[in-house]
Amino acid sequence: MLSKNQVKLIRSLNQKKYRLQHGLFVVEGFKVIKELLNSHYVLHTLYTTEAFNADEKEVLISEKDLKRISFLKTPHTAVAIFEIPKIKAIDHNQLIVALDDVRDPGNLGTIIRLCDWFGIQDLVCSKETVDCFNPKVVQASMGSITRVNIVYVDLLTFLENHSTAIFGAYMEGENVYKKTFPNQGVLVMGNEANGISEAVEKLISDKITIPRFGDIQATESLNVATATAILLSEFRRSR
Amino acid sequence: MLSKNQVKLIRSLNQKKYRLQHGLFVVEGFKVIKELLNSHYVLHTLYTTEAFNADEKEVLISEKDLKRISFLKTPHTAVAIFEIPKIKAIDHNQLIVALDDVRDPGNLGTIIRLCDWFGIQDLVCSKETVDCFNPKVVQASMGSITRVNIVYVDLLTFLENHSTAIFGAYMEGENVYKKTFPNQGVLVMGNEANGISEAVEKLISDKITIPRFGDIQATESLNVATATAILLSEFRRSR
Repeated sequence: MLSKNQVKLIRSLNQKKYRLQHGLFVVEGFKVIKELLNSHYVLHTLYTTEAFNADEKEVLISEKDLKRISFLKTPHTAVAIFEIPKIKAIDHNQLIVALDDVRDPGNLGTIIRLCDWFGIQDLVCSKETVDCFNPKVVQASMGSITRVNIVYVDLLTFLENHSTAIFGAYMEGENVYKKTFPNQGVLVMGNEANGISEAVEKLISDKITIPRFGDIQATESLNVATATAILLSEFRRSR
Repeated sequence: MLSKNQVKLIRSLNQKKYRLQHGLFVVEGFKVIKELLNSHYVLHTLYTTEAFNADEKEVLISEKDLKRISFLKTPHTAVAIFEIPKIKAIDHNQLIVALDDVRDPGNLGTIIRLCDWFGIQDLVCSKETVDCFNPKVVQASMGSITRVNIVYVDLLTFLENHSTAIFGAYMEGENVYKKTFPNQGVLVMGNEANGISEAVEKLISDKITIPRFGDIQATESLNVATATAILLSEFRRSR
């Protein structure tokens, strides 16, 4: 049976400040846990109702205990605690994706998966962007989180110290289908409701836009994750 | 105050069979309701805690009543009931998107939004695809649902009777960056877990794929909505 302190620790990891304090985060779901076990990520403890073969770090628990520690309405069969990995130095000579206050965990998870697909090594996030070790982000990233270096920075300072082109996704900008993209630079994607902030906008060297083909009366923009998908595809297709 | 029968009717609209029986569906959230009010969609009743100016179809209710009829954990200020619109004839001379059992409401909502952006008039769904009038789909579509003709069909019969090219998104197929796409045809996107079904696969004339640029050890595919975003962008960029 789990001790009160164990339960308290695990449940506290739903909050960013406790994740940072303990250097730990939670993963649920067999598929994602397996991907993380097969990566450079270090397992702290695996709580499971079925033997999983993670040696001395595995703790068999009851379904009742699983419900006490799971963040899901319908828990899977295991909850794993992993160590938050050390971040690597950012390679300024590659294409980098930078997020200016993306708040939705599903969007960040999808963008991490896209970075993995399109070979983006470094994903730079503003301090206000949702934490990548938020359980919903880890879930949505489907294991891609282990293959992308995600760094939280003061975005203004980071961009001020970057020497190659800084691209920003806007509703009005240069048509991406008519542009040739370099192999390096930063692609900045903005907040779901407000787009790229005014302070960051001053540092953008190239405003780019995905043309709309539908009804011009429609006012909605593309979702930030689908816009990132199309833009990364445009950057890579010319290689 | 709302009658028991009104509450019962509204709450029943969470299920497809009652939506079809009554020809009605539910919309929540000021922004989406406003988009639907400004479209050809016909309002049945608007239940709201604040005057909304929808004339005799508006019913002012208490916050307590709103909580009784809302499908959201944190209700907005209004729940609107709209009539399910009549579907239009499919234009086989345009580019059509077809979904083979897409199950996630968020994915369907995002794909509807993409169809709107890229000027796809007709979205054809297999019978097993999640219902587009599911409250979560309507929410995720952000009003785009009013500008796309969404038709549920027997997908095999539909494709058998289609005479231009039928494209299917696969993990292994022709590189989309090297292909020139026509202005007409059907783009088939598969189920989240299983992709395109075997029966539908036999009717695909062109298997296409979005190249991966990242770590080749990674096994995950792209999410169906982000793959649709990239493929629609590829179809449209050559216009």
